[in-house]
Amino acid sequence: MIGGGEGAFIGAAHRHAAGLDGHYQLVCGAFSRNEDNNQRTADSLDIHDDRLYNDWQTMLEREAALPEDERMQVVVIVTPNHLHVPISVAAMKAGFHVFCEKPAALSLDEAKSLASAIQGQPSLYGLAHTYLGYPMIWQARQMVADGQLGRIRKVFVEYPQGWLSAKEETDNKQASWRTDPSQSGDSGCMGDIGTHAFGLAEFVLDDVVTELCGVLHTHVEGRRLDDDGAALLKTQRGTTGVLIASQVCAGEENPLSIRVYGEKGGLEWRQMEPNSLIYRPAGEPYQVLRAGLGQAGLCDEAVRRCRVPGGHPEGYLEAMANLYTDFAAAIRGKLTGTAPGVPGIAEGVRGMAFIDAMLKSTDSDQKWQSVEAVGTVKK
Amino acid sequence: MIGGGEGAFIGAAHRHAAGLDGHYQLVCGAFSRNEDNNQRTADSLDIHDDRLYNDWQTMLEREAALPEDERMQVVVIVTPNHLHVPISVAAMKAGFHVFCEKPAALSLDEAKSLASAIQGQPSLYGLAHTYLGYPMIWQARQMVADGQLGRIRKVFVEYPQGWLSAKEETDNKQASWRTDPSQSGDSGCMGDIGTHAFGLAEFVLDDVVTELCGVLHTHVEGRRLDDDGAALLKTQRGTTGVLIASQVCAGEENPLSIRVYGEKGGLEWRQMEPNSLIYRPAGEPYQVLRAGLGQAGLCDEAVRRCRVPGGHPEGYLEAMANLYTDFAAAIRGKLTGTAPGVPGIAEGVRGMAFIDAMLKSTDSDQKWQSVEAVGTVKK
Amino acid sequence: MIGGGEGAFIGAAHRHAAGLDGHYQLVCGAFSRNEDNNQRTADSLDIHDDRLYNDWQTMLEREAALPEDERMQVVVIVTPNHLHVPISVAAMKAGFHVFCEKPAALSLDEAKSLASAIQGQPSLYGLAHTYLGYPMIWQARQMVADGQLGRIRKVFVEYPQGWLSAKEETDNKQASWRTDPSQSGDSGCMGDIGTHAFGLAEFVLDDVVTELCGVLHTHVEGRRLDDDGAALLKTQRGTTGVLIASQVCAGEENPLSIRVYGEKGGLEWRQMEPNSLIYRPAGEPYQVLRAGLGQAGLCDEAVRRCRVPGGHPEGYLEAMANLYTDFAAAIRGKLTGTAPGVPGIAEGVRGMAFIDAMLKSTDSDQKWQSVEAVGTVKK
Amino acid sequence: MIGGGEGAFIGAAHRHAAGLDGHYQLVCGAFSRNEDNNQRTADSLDIHDDRLYNDWQTMLEREAALPEDERMQVVVIVTPNHLHVPISVAAMKAGFHVFCEKPAALSLDEAKSLASAIQGQPSLYGLAHTYLGYPMIWQARQMVADGQLGRIRKVFVEYPQGWLSAKEETDNKQASWRTDPSQSGDSGCMGDIGTHAFGLAEFVLDDVVTELCGVLHTHVEGRRLDDDGAALLKTQRGTTGVLIASQVCAGEENPLSIRVYGEKGGLEWRQMEPNSLIYRPAGEPYQVLRAGLGQAGLCDEAVRRCRVPGGHPEGYLEAMANLYTDFAAAIRGKLTGTAPGVPGIAEGVRGMAFIDAMLKSTDSDQKWQSVEAVGTVKK
Repeated sequence: MIGGGEGAFIGAAHRHAAGLDGHYQLVCGAFSRNEDNNQRTADSLDIHDDRLYNDWQTMLEREAALPEDERMQVVVIVTPNHLHVPISVAAMKAGFHVFCEKPAALSLDEAKSLASAIQGQPSLYGLAHTYLGYPMIWQARQMVADGQLGRIRKVFVEYPQGWLSAKEETDNKQASWRTDPSQSGDSGCMGDIGTHAFGLAEFVLDDVVTELCGVLHTHVEGRRLDDDGAALLKTQRGTTGVLIASQVCAGEENPLSIRVYGEKGGLEWRQMEPNSLIYRPAGEPYQVLRAGLGQAGLCDEAVRRCRVPGGHPEGYLEAMANLYTDFAAAIRGKLTGTAPGVPGIAEGVRGMAFIDAMLKSTDSDQKWQSVEAVGTVKK
Repeated sequence: MIGGGEGAFIGAAHRHAAGLDGHYQLVCGAFSRNEDNNQRTADSLDIHDDRLYNDWQTMLEREAALPEDERMQVVVIVTPNHLHVPISVAAMKAGFHVFCEKPAALSLDEAKSLASAIQGQPSLYGLAHTYLGYPMIWQARQMVADGQLGRIRKVFVEYPQGWLSAKEETDNKQASWRTDPSQSGDSGCMGDIGTHAFGLAEFVLDDVVTELCGVLHTHVEGRRLDDDGAALLKTQRGTTGVLIASQVCAGEENPLSIRVYGEKGGLEWRQMEPNSLIYRPAGEPYQVLRAGLGQAGLCDEAVRRCRVPGGHPEGYLEAMANLYTDFAAAIRGKLTGTAPGVPGIAEGVRGMAFIDAMLKSTDSDQKWQSVEAVGTVKK
Repeated sequence: MIGGGEGAFIGAAHRHAAGLDGHYQLVCGAFSRNEDNNQRTADSLDIHDDRLYNDWQTMLEREAALPEDERMQVVVIVTPNHLHVPISVAAMKAGFHVFCEKPAALSLDEAKSLASAIQGQPSLYGLAHTYLGYPMIWQARQMVADGQLGRIRKVFVEYPQGWLSAKEETDNKQASWRTDPSQSGDSGCMGDIGTHAFGLAEFVLDDVVTELCGVLHTHVEGRRLDDDGAALLKTQRGTTGVLIASQVCAGEENPLSIRVYGEKGGLEWRQMEPNSLIYRPAGEPYQVLRAGLGQAGLCDEAVRRCRVPGGHPEGYLEAMANLYTDFAAAIRGKLTGTAPGVPGIAEGVRGMAFIDAMLKSTDSDQKWQSVEAVGTVKK
Repeated sequence: MIGGGEGAFIGAAHRHAAGLDGHYQLVCGAFSRNEDNNQRTADSLDIHDDRLYNDWQTMLEREAALPEDERMQVVVIVTPNHLHVPISVAAMKAGFHVFCEKPAALSLDEAKSLASAIQGQPSLYGLAHTYLGYPMIWQARQMVADGQLGRIRKVFVEYPQGWLSAKEETDNKQASWRTDPSQSGDSGCMGDIGTHAFGLAEFVLDDVVTELCGVLHTHVEGRRLDDDGAALLKTQRGTTGVLIASQVCAGEENPLSIRVYGEKGGLEWRQMEPNSLIYRPAGEPYQVLRAGLGQAGLCDEAVRRCRVPGGHPEGYLEAMANLYTDFAAAIRGKLTGTAPGVPGIAEGVRGMAFIDAMLKSTDSDQKWQSVEAVGTVKK
């Protein structure tokens, strides 16, 4: 693991998720550039001193020099964003599998360069678009694909957080790097959570956003990156919609949600109650499909992402664990490229194409901005 | 009552609402141009034959000729939209109070002409923006005005219905005139329900939308008016937001909702559970304020719009009845113009200014379209 | 109307409910023994002085002396409980229809005497078991009757209010008479709201509770009647269940609810969201049936109790108005006894049999107490 | 691990929970008496053949013979109930820590014998009352203890499942042993889930149920144990309440819930939305306290049981993992007896005392049955 020292929420989340299904063991780390933090983190995680490294370069080099059955197999990258690409490229070139926190890169150009660099490497690249690990998201995608809603007309996806409503204090590690362009990239809120919303919409629809009309705002004075934004969307198949992402919706926690409407019905999913998927067939009472083993109406892709019977709630860490488990299966299966079931470089490039279009649209007086058709096959 | 024959939902709703608090008695009507329907409606409502009229012109004329203590006092207009202005003008000129179903007019120009025509008339004009009769909407407005949320940054208002997901059948009276431009005006969905969403946002914020970037869509083939749309919004005080209105969100009933976020917290209200107002003060557990007599934390304007103690749900008809009751109080108080607590011509003109801007924005490649500053005082 | 002066919640509720559908006009009253209150109430309701009476005896006498087409037709009784029977008997003997707030009587014996006294009278007796006016309660009853749940095994009905958590102040008119045995009867909470829960269970199941094991508690020191209680239940058809009623569940509003489970599925209804009925067919996703005109899956009895399309919430006053409207239809149809669709003396006697059994069970060391088989036909 | 072969839900749950926080490694097992199942399970879990055992006796013996730094430290018991005591006693006598699925024993007598047998052993005994691992349960307990609700008057705890609504098929491993008295004990539903409800009530109240009036039912013909029941409760401190547990509430998943009401307010928690705790202070809007790092209003015991910020849902496996993590901390701290934060033999004995009282009460005509005052200190 690179990054994830004390005080870094997402590093701990990755460790929990990787441990849940028993496929991973944490063997080494370069958790923090701060030596004390690095050591304390290692101690708390029972990492031996000879597998604790001061920086990621040393870690890659020294691990690569170990005998094959002793060295780490997967590098988990949970650093600030600006290190995602350099580490990913170096790690894959050194023969390690990479599982990287999102976003894939700081910019669309950097994401493309990453895609080129890792093209053809013999190891795997996975991207932690965690919300794509939820069973009911796969259920929604399947119902859309099966035509249960008919042709899709509308998509509303939103992600209104509140935790950046006040100016970040300088000692809030979470907030401070996220609002620093050199570490976070050219977008704040859109890069941090807008990409989740965007990726969720494209995934559930299995469609490509081709144009958007977007605005980014910075509501908190003195902040250097956007903390809020919204966009009107058009997709290749003719669906229209709205995307909202904000980190100044004071009082809100993490209510990512998606609603999809077709000719014959609609679906609604809310991350804060992730085990329910509301299905509204036109002209019938609405239904609530529920995650869990043995639950009625679920497709195989949803069921295999559940661990316990219905009514025993699973959550965010289980969603992330689903990505880790599929990644482990791909490693065992000696696959290369992207692991089935795990978001990869294609999703990473899409996310950056979205950010790129949002930035351009914000600067433009023209209504519609095309989203570059990269990172995904045409439908 | 003019309009509201058999099969017309909104006419019956007005009758229930007017009856709820005991301030009105239905004394005469011209319910339908269809003579049979007109007669049947009159019979079911115990309207004497000599107070049943074949058309609204006759009704105004004959009622005006009755002795003052016998003739009707208020004309309720629940016809298709294209008759709203002609009847309103004629009725007010004949000295009657007018309570009109929304929208006020077919177009911004017609709304302005209505405003001019009724300016200075000695009677009252009320507009059934029913959702502004809900107690918790007044509570929300008060909390915003009191600064409980701090400066307002965001507003999200949406109204996603599903009932026009399929092509209207020719015998669906509700659907057919609503999608006929000559009866409904230049906008379908936006005129029918988008105006509700728009008016709700301006009311709760007590602010004016100055610019928008909007799109209207017609998803159902062969339909002559929009059935869906969305807009990015900017207000005079610097709030930004999103408005969504649609009648092709298959499976949805009538989930009008508004969310408002300021520097210090947020509010959320959903019409389908209208007695709850979620208040999210930043950094504290969220609270649910509840409508009802004797409930904690409610402002006077909210309490006086409740009839029963908390936990005894009130709904849509009670909201409309609140408008009727305030209208009755203004009549008794011999007020002119607009009744306090009741939306009037100002709100009517605002709604049409919104439609006008949406139509222009849809036709334009430019991102931002100004909303004409009419129908409301500058803040 | 007898009772219902200023400060009496339920009187106003009855007036709103009677007005909602336009079938009633308030023509006379004896609203309060307090002369000032009586006069003020009359004034606010536009009751002429010559139809305002100082006491109910005078009102019955003088109204009976009026010409038939001038006098009142229906007496609405909204007094404290101890007057329900005397007024009901006198009014029916004087030829008036009676619509009485529940409970029907102070005790089982008094209820039986009422039943005898009004037996064969040419007018109608209705009892305001308001919750039986909700459309989704009729829907639930129908689904049970149709066997959609299979044989019924379990019923849970509960009514946990909080408003009597503190000792009532002497000037709280609502609370003070309810806790005075001479005005309220031998039971406080059970008589006030337990009877609603009991009646709801028997109505939805269309079954008869034959035995119960109950306890009544008085949690607030110095209170003379029970403010809380619970019972285990057995019905004639072999359903078992639990009934809870309390007025010391601090913080609760009015969350009456019922859940019913059969071999093939379950139903759940909550009064504070009365337009939804959750239907859980075993082995399928659960569904939510929704009240409203044009809604899918509703039986005729449910639909005819709705006024507006789905998504426009109806509530408590509409439920009560449904009883009033059915009562009006029975009057117009010149029926006698009990109006179809309206709870009557049978339900009244059942409620008192329940209270009687609860009181006996509380005083007994034996587990099971039979509930007297009166007030209802054997199934 | 003993038990937990293929098809056994709870064994897999324990493995996930133990893995989540990285404190455990699965080193050996006797997963099934069926040799094939045992082998397949071991293979899927990467257990070496030399640490896979045919029966638990062999496992205890052989592991005890290994060098201290190689042998297992903790025995996890996830067998049918009748083996819980024999294995627990043997394992603790062999010096291993024991973490046992509930119930602790088949009967109150057996539970007492277990308590005696393990008294003074140098290792730890933990019992998987998983629901006591939820952060918001600790929050509720703390709020009660702090007097935020005032003196507690009422507790309602219920656990209405539906999965045994139909007769279990002989090949449903989950259902079949649970309804076999020789494997499950003298109670079915009450032993399986009633004990959870009972333990939850005593834990949140920090009080002792002293008397109950209970009934057990067997609704499904041919079933040998109860599948449903309910009880009226009295506690030492004067709280009264109701407990419901059922496995024939067709259509229900796993909606364990608890509501507590005191003089000054109430609390409500529902396992299927475990991250919310509804707090209803009398005379104020109700609040929803939310689990998560950095959330407002949470006590230390709640916060330290959370892994991620608010809005990232945690669930059932995280609750169980909280028990495992506290158990690991106690092992590292070389504690004996019961691990702080983990239910132990005292809770186990209480659960069996409850079952014992339910069985006696069911067989009795007397209303109240005392619950033996064992397994817990007097308050």
